[in-house]
Amino acid sequence: MTYQNEGGINANMTDELAKAAVLVEALPYIQKFNRKIIVVKYGGSAMVDEDLKKKVIQDVVLLKLVGFKPIIVHGGGKDITKWADKVGIETRKVNGLRVTDEPTMEIAEMVLNKINKDLVSLIQLLGIKACGISGKDGKLLNCTKKLSDGQDIGYVGDITSVDGKVIMDLIENDFLPVIAPIGTDEEGHSYNINADDAACAIATACQAEKLAFLTDTEGLYLDFEDKNSLISEISVKEAEDLISGGTIVGGMLPKLHNCIDAIKSGVSRVHILDGRIPHCLLLEIFTNKGIGTAIIDDNAERFYNNDK
Amino acid sequence: MTYQNEGGINANMTDELAKAAVLVEALPYIQKFNRKIIVVKYGGSAMVDEDLKKKVIQDVVLLKLVGFKPIIVHGGGKDITKWADKVGIETRKVNGLRVTDEPTMEIAEMVLNKINKDLVSLIQLLGIKACGISGKDGKLLNCTKKLSDGQDIGYVGDITSVDGKVIMDLIENDFLPVIAPIGTDEEGHSYNINADDAACAIATACQAEKLAFLTDTEGLYLDFEDKNSLISEISVKEAEDLISGGTIVGGMLPKLHNCIDAIKSGVSRVHILDGRIPHCLLLEIFTNKGIGTAIIDDNAERFYNNDK
Amino acid sequence: MTYQNEGGINANMTDELAKAAVLVEALPYIQKFNRKIIVVKYGGSAMVDEDLKKKVIQDVVLLKLVGFKPIIVHGGGKDITKWADKVGIETRKVNGLRVTDEPTMEIAEMVLNKINKDLVSLIQLLGIKACGISGKDGKLLNCTKKLSDGQDIGYVGDITSVDGKVIMDLIENDFLPVIAPIGTDEEGHSYNINADDAACAIATACQAEKLAFLTDTEGLYLDFEDKNSLISEISVKEAEDLISGGTIVGGMLPKLHNCIDAIKSGVSRVHILDGRIPHCLLLEIFTNKGIGTAIIDDNAERFYNNDK
Amino acid sequence: MTYQNEGGINANMTDELAKAAVLVEALPYIQKFNRKIIVVKYGGSAMVDEDLKKKVIQDVVLLKLVGFKPIIVHGGGKDITKWADKVGIETRKVNGLRVTDEPTMEIAEMVLNKINKDLVSLIQLLGIKACGISGKDGKLLNCTKKLSDGQDIGYVGDITSVDGKVIMDLIENDFLPVIAPIGTDEEGHSYNINADDAACAIATACQAEKLAFLTDTEGLYLDFEDKNSLISEISVKEAEDLISGGTIVGGMLPKLHNCIDAIKSGVSRVHILDGRIPHCLLLEIFTNKGIGTAIIDDNAERFYNNDK
Amino acid sequence: MTYQNEGGINANMTDELAKAAVLVEALPYIQKFNRKIIVVKYGGSAMVDEDLKKKVIQDVVLLKLVGFKPIIVHGGGKDITKWADKVGIETRKVNGLRVTDEPTMEIAEMVLNKINKDLVSLIQLLGIKACGISGKDGKLLNCTKKLSDGQDIGYVGDITSVDGKVIMDLIENDFLPVIAPIGTDEEGHSYNINADDAACAIATACQAEKLAFLTDTEGLYLDFEDKNSLISEISVKEAEDLISGGTIVGGMLPKLHNCIDAIKSGVSRVHILDGRIPHCLLLEIFTNKGIGTAIIDDNAERFYNNDK
Amino acid sequence: MTYQNEGGINANMTDELAKAAVLVEALPYIQKFNRKIIVVKYGGSAMVDEDLKKKVIQDVVLLKLVGFKPIIVHGGGKDITKWADKVGIETRKVNGLRVTDEPTMEIAEMVLNKINKDLVSLIQLLGIKACGISGKDGKLLNCTKKLSDGQDIGYVGDITSVDGKVIMDLIENDFLPVIAPIGTDEEGHSYNINADDAACAIATACQAEKLAFLTDTEGLYLDFEDKNSLISEISVKEAEDLISGGTIVGGMLPKLHNCIDAIKSGVSRVHILDGRIPHCLLLEIFTNKGIGTAIIDDNAERFYNNDK
Repeated sequence: MTYQNEGGINANMTDELAKAAVLVEALPYIQKFNRKIIVVKYGGSAMVDEDLKKKVIQDVVLLKLVGFKPIIVHGGGKDITKWADKVGIETRKVNGLRVTDEPTMEIAEMVLNKINKDLVSLIQLLGIKACGISGKDGKLLNCTKKLSDGQDIGYVGDITSVDGKVIMDLIENDFLPVIAPIGTDEEGHSYNINADDAACAIATACQAEKLAFLTDTEGLYLDFEDKNSLISEISVKEAEDLISGGTIVGGMLPKLHNCIDAIKSGVSRVHILDGRIPHCLLLEIFTNKGIGTAIIDDNAERFYNNDK
Repeated sequence: MTYQNEGGINANMTDELAKAAVLVEALPYIQKFNRKIIVVKYGGSAMVDEDLKKKVIQDVVLLKLVGFKPIIVHGGGKDITKWADKVGIETRKVNGLRVTDEPTMEIAEMVLNKINKDLVSLIQLLGIKACGISGKDGKLLNCTKKLSDGQDIGYVGDITSVDGKVIMDLIENDFLPVIAPIGTDEEGHSYNINADDAACAIATACQAEKLAFLTDTEGLYLDFEDKNSLISEISVKEAEDLISGGTIVGGMLPKLHNCIDAIKSGVSRVHILDGRIPHCLLLEIFTNKGIGTAIIDDNAERFYNNDK
Repeated sequence: MTYQNEGGINANMTDELAKAAVLVEALPYIQKFNRKIIVVKYGGSAMVDEDLKKKVIQDVVLLKLVGFKPIIVHGGGKDITKWADKVGIETRKVNGLRVTDEPTMEIAEMVLNKINKDLVSLIQLLGIKACGISGKDGKLLNCTKKLSDGQDIGYVGDITSVDGKVIMDLIENDFLPVIAPIGTDEEGHSYNINADDAACAIATACQAEKLAFLTDTEGLYLDFEDKNSLISEISVKEAEDLISGGTIVGGMLPKLHNCIDAIKSGVSRVHILDGRIPHCLLLEIFTNKGIGTAIIDDNAERFYNNDK
Repeated sequence: MTYQNEGGINANMTDELAKAAVLVEALPYIQKFNRKIIVVKYGGSAMVDEDLKKKVIQDVVLLKLVGFKPIIVHGGGKDITKWADKVGIETRKVNGLRVTDEPTMEIAEMVLNKINKDLVSLIQLLGIKACGISGKDGKLLNCTKKLSDGQDIGYVGDITSVDGKVIMDLIENDFLPVIAPIGTDEEGHSYNINADDAACAIATACQAEKLAFLTDTEGLYLDFEDKNSLISEISVKEAEDLISGGTIVGGMLPKLHNCIDAIKSGVSRVHILDGRIPHCLLLEIFTNKGIGTAIIDDNAERFYNNDK
Repeated sequence: MTYQNEGGINANMTDELAKAAVLVEALPYIQKFNRKIIVVKYGGSAMVDEDLKKKVIQDVVLLKLVGFKPIIVHGGGKDITKWADKVGIETRKVNGLRVTDEPTMEIAEMVLNKINKDLVSLIQLLGIKACGISGKDGKLLNCTKKLSDGQDIGYVGDITSVDGKVIMDLIENDFLPVIAPIGTDEEGHSYNINADDAACAIATACQAEKLAFLTDTEGLYLDFEDKNSLISEISVKEAEDLISGGTIVGGMLPKLHNCIDAIKSGVSRVHILDGRIPHCLLLEIFTNKGIGTAIIDDNAERFYNNDK
Repeated sequence: MTYQNEGGINANMTDELAKAAVLVEALPYIQKFNRKIIVVKYGGSAMVDEDLKKKVIQDVVLLKLVGFKPIIVHGGGKDITKWADKVGIETRKVNGLRVTDEPTMEIAEMVLNKINKDLVSLIQLLGIKACGISGKDGKLLNCTKKLSDGQDIGYVGDITSVDGKVIMDLIENDFLPVIAPIGTDEEGHSYNINADDAACAIATACQAEKLAFLTDTEGLYLDFEDKNSLISEISVKEAEDLISGGTIVGGMLPKLHNCIDAIKSGVSRVHILDGRIPHCLLLEIFTNKGIGTAIIDDNAERFYNNDK
């Protein structure tokens, strides 16, 4: 027989009730997204910091357990560079894109598949079965060579078609799919694919409800210098106005284009989250106070009237 | 466009991280009981106090949303007495059992079905579909007349068999079943059935993982006078020893017998919870610190080594 | 060993052959409506007279056994009045509609649910499993407050939408659904709904092949005074002409409107039957000589050329 | 608009109510055998008389429509003899068995398949889809050569195994199977099989609830000379006693052995019916007064206490 | 233990590698037609010569084993004539069509069903389950009387509708369907149907990918006298031009019309094969060098650029 | 229009008929193993030589197309050594096992996953969808550290359990699974697993009918020096006798133990094939003359009486 600790239940009942309140706050969000697909683009600091990595995995596993159908699409640029160095391959970039010759592609594929399987292991330690595949499996990501301003930069791929069957089958069979952004062309050659592009294409093909980018920024700023100008929610039209007005520049520009494409292809809500905040996914999805920037359809209902 | 509140994310980040911690704490419990059936015997103060009632419903709905398959079995004694008074039927008890003549049974059935449909409405306001049935539907609860020390006390039933198909079909079709404790005999007559008995029989027939009784006590005390003697966890054998030793008396005795029967019939864990504590179900199931008393199999692993 | 009664088979072979003839006569009708849904609005004398009640139940059970999918929608006005009296609630009507304040609605819901479960028991005594629900379960009947000439008459509902999933699931799982005409609004409050309206809405939502009203009239008369003017079959257009010509008045008017609505919504054939004739359902459906009045689509083939 | 015939409903209401009574009488039998398989061995006079043939087909179709799963196994001896004559083959019998040389088997197979397809047509005229196969299709009836007192009598088969899959698939797909009693050996040669044997083997393989033989006798007599000694119901043990006592002789002997085998293999009830009585199947199955002789298990409940 | 034959593997490795090459050559064709339906019209010499018959059956069984879904439609004209002679019926033709009076139809049906079951046996000897039906079963082939230049020639049928359900069900249940070309009218009478017509109608109804006619010609010649003018591949338009140009005459004309109809109804490719060549089906389908003449859609890709 | 090549069909008809003969020869083997699982351990020269590699892939694809369910388990030792050199890791072996420290395991996992995805691409070029996974995915291969004579040799794994669900799901969804021999322990660490062990464990877990090892030997020799002593077929008992008699030594010993284990666990037939022979899989499986050595159960029927 076990007895209650002395002091009884009532001693720290305040804490307990606060806990219950958090769970109850999550209730409508769990309900809203029940059985919906959410694609998580996993990259940046959240992939480097071991503590953050563990928390992202916890978040995704929780999403799965409460009824979502999460899909992870991961990057791996930093590790590719590290390994290229290790085997004596010089990293060269053109317009920010890695020039990917045959040996570079070989090492990139090896590194990305290794990251892929490491994520599978981490997820499975939490009791959920995962399956790691690349865009080559089941002809998931098909591509052609991407030119950079007309210049051949090697095996860098532009996605031409997505066959999501292998992912949907894994989900149907209760596995959590983890995807490495490698594509293939009609001759079976491998291509490095930008992970943001891959996530966006997969979200579209799998008719995801949500697409969340874990980034190293707090979100989208109207004025990057003014920390009070962080945008909570923005419609496609508003975003396109900002782009055409020249407000959005740099690395955020292609990402925002991806967001807009995803919304236009039927994804309901795209989130740019700050992957440096622990449990940013949980906080965005399960609490009234959202985090980062949400891109939504022009006609969508807005959440953030007061707080969310 | 919507901007983040001034002060930014970081202002109350501490609160947010605490919220995330609660959700993460719930993770292993969500996983453990995923797709398992839990029968909640709903009665006592938690049925009378409107605020408590709302919180019980929230809890059950949350259980369903995160993947449990909850079944509610409710009582209604107080309302039956109230309505019997209203139509001029005198309430008479023998050995604590309501003498249930034809007119009493008629009003009892009407009252229980009304409570049943009210609960359905409350659940559905939270976005979950429910279906309220009685033990007559689908021949769920079949019974014979119960005698009290050999004395005929009218239409009070002893459950003789349970056909859980109607419940399992509702669960399969994604409805939350709400059950009124009315049985029927071979001639089709209605019987009042003790709600604890009904919950126990249904938990057994549906092979529930858990059976939780919402009561008006804090749980089982070794010494009812000593508030520090509240038992957190007790095995069937230990409980039978307490009973044979004369420690357990009064209304707790039949309830404990029900608990023991349920465990012996394959329910893994039976909880006696204090329904007067708001969100007692959530706290018991989703936090490390359990509430009330758990009855378990003699060979079951114990949770409450340290806190739970 | 058992021997044939003396006199042998041939003694009463004539009777036996007549029996076979009846069964053979039923053959094309059984075939025609195999696996089709038929909604039976059960009300009037057939609910009061115990012998008639038993025969209605037998008929519906037979319909189910030979392959139909029957749904019962019942009324209960007389019992509601009786119980309102018993608890001291005065019954008040405006334009023939019961003014339904909170206490009246409370007793109405209790009475209707009791009738509902009694029917379930009667059906189950014949070996068929039934399940009794109200329009609140599974959000079956959703409504708003009905005004009577602009006047608030309390919780009397106008059906705004029907979600037939709970019924279709019960049918799929081989239960005979029995429906009490209670609706619910968005706040979860209960409403009394006219049983004819409920039957018509459910027949439409479940894409019933037939809708049969058990009434206390022989059917529709062209001239109510002339007993030879009973109409066997009438098209929607003909019925609308009768209405606009002022031939149809009184309680038959809203019922005929319901019939017309049902036909226009896709029900193939609506029957106004005389519930005072024993086995009127069987006779209408399984014999060449129909009973009562059938309302049909303008383009439908007519049965009653000669006899049916 | 169509009016009721003059004289109104009430004129011949007595007849109508009698009809209803017949349908209601059938109700428990419909319920009892719902979704059960019944094998009808169709032969004798009922195959020759066109009016009887039509009525047997009506009966079987009605059985199917009210929820049974009937299978027809037919004979065809008379037509085989007729066609053998027509092509100049002499019919020769040894111990009552047709000596079946190659040309005889050829014509027998042709004749039986023709009868088979004729039955299919007759059934389909009543709106039910049928499919006619022989025991060769899907390796339904596998056999070896039967010897008659050690004498080779040609292609007469002893059933060695039955593969009922082709029948069960047809039933599952809602076809009424009609079976010609032709078997095949391991070399693929055709064999003539006694239709009683085939019916018995198929009833066993398909786990039929009932097996009914349409014969040219009224049933089993204790004393064939005494028309009052017709046995209504007899257990296997009683039947075996009659056989060992020498009471049963002639053509009834192998048929009774078949009945006993079927009961011992799990068929619940075997009927020897007088196929010369119109609608004998309906009368046996749907009326309280059975016809012919039923063979039942020693421990089965007896129907014929009073009348049935 | 068993040892390799002396001389070892290498002795006849050349032969073995040639075998592997054949299998590898078949690979793309197996893949291309995987799970597609192919209707084989089986007739002519290939039905008469026992060795050819065996090889056709082997071919069809192989088609089934490697993933095709073959359907056999067979003729039987020669056997009908033989049997008509045997029973003393004079065979009379009008415009090449057999005048089919009642006795002729009777014998024709018997003969076709016999051929049908013989084919079933032959197939089953190779380990595949088959089921032989006629166009009467499951109301597969429905027809009206065909007139020949306005002249009544008896029970010769023109197909009016096809209900392929019985075939599709058999395929679904893994049986190989074998079809006798007998149809039925609304009164259930049997009709003789031209087997080419039947094959064409069935291929259309079952949405076959291929339809192959086994004939006694090498294929379609541009100039029948010039053996070098055999056409390998011809589009519908080209074929229609040949017909309107008068190039195609005689028995090939109706067959070519059938081919054209089938292509226009959605069959992808129709083959006129020389049934006198052993394994002509295998050679056509699994080798690079096709056989006979293929009729294709005007827009279809051509196979026979070089060899196939 | 396309014409047949000059010279006509008959010119090289001999060749064509020989082709047909090969296909017909394959027929019984296709039938025998239809829908059966075959695990192919792919390694040795057949992985190095590009032409052999292509032929192995063709064979496996053909197996899949004709109805088998193949699973590829591959090795990769040579490539691991090559890459280890490239990144400056010294390869060290103890008792023939690679000492696998953390950096070695890291490069091994990268190399094996790369080989894995390359195979996926090659298969998919032939039109079949494949999915490449490692033993970490879906917790397929679980292991503990293997000691070599008690010595810690790093992350070399002994398989402790296999969860074949991920493979069976892929097969069910029509993907060809390609497996890299990497396992995981309870902490999620990766382990190098011997590919023969992995193939054997997977064949057992998936209840494979066949397990085929592609090796660099011709099979099992009774006397390795005597090329005429190659064993075609050997039972488990005979193999165990050879082992205990000391006849089998070297690298063949653990492989033979694997074969014996597989047979004892329910695999019907294990083949040791010479991967250096082009299309060795096809030749073994589809031709009468087998190749290499087959290990079979003591009670199994022997194939190689005469030739196979």
